[in-house]
Amino acid sequence: MLTELESAMNNFIDIFHKYSLEKGNYHALYRDDLKKLLEAECPQYMKKKDADTWFKELDVNKDSAVNFEEFLALVVKVGVAAHEDIHKEEHNQ
Amino acid sequence: MLTELESAMNNFIDIFHKYSLEKGNYHALYRDDLKKLLEAECPQYMKKKDADTWFKELDVNKDSAVNFEEFLALVVKVGVAAHEDIHKEEHNQ
Repeated sequence: MLTELESAMNNFIDIFHKYSLEKGNYHALYRDDLKKLLEAECPQYMKKKDADTWFKELDVNKDSAVNFEEFLALVVKVGVAAHEDIHKEEHNQ
Repeated sequence: MLTELESAMNNFIDIFHKYSLEKGNYHALYRDDLKKLLEAECPQYMKKKDADTWFKELDVNKDSAVNFEEFLALVVKVGVAAHEDIHKEEHNQ
């Protein structure tokens, strides 16, 4: 039986694999895999920064692929922004 | 309509708030809030490191509370471990 935190984490793993599996390498989001993920999952984050810029920023170890740990850096950025939005909405109510 | 990534992120925000709301400060997990969260959500992560050690490690800005961004550092650690476990299980099958 998974806890809420573990279930939520599994959702992220599933999202990562949904796109990383496209090229047959379970551990790697290549440049166009990441682009598909961004377009589908968080299009608003491509307004200020295009997919190539995201890719360069996330591929910290410069192996031309974004692994799961590197993907979590995107998750953290999206999460911090989403959390701020929630509190902004409350403030405006 | 939320994307899968946004829904998954909202789950983390809900988990954070579930424990941060206990003390009336929406933005802060105090030492005992964090302990409750760890005990309920990821007890296996307290085997090697107790709640006080986690608290010191996560409270990066040393304001005696874990904010949402600091909480996400825990999420990343749990996530990386969960992802490794998934692939270990596959390897053993």
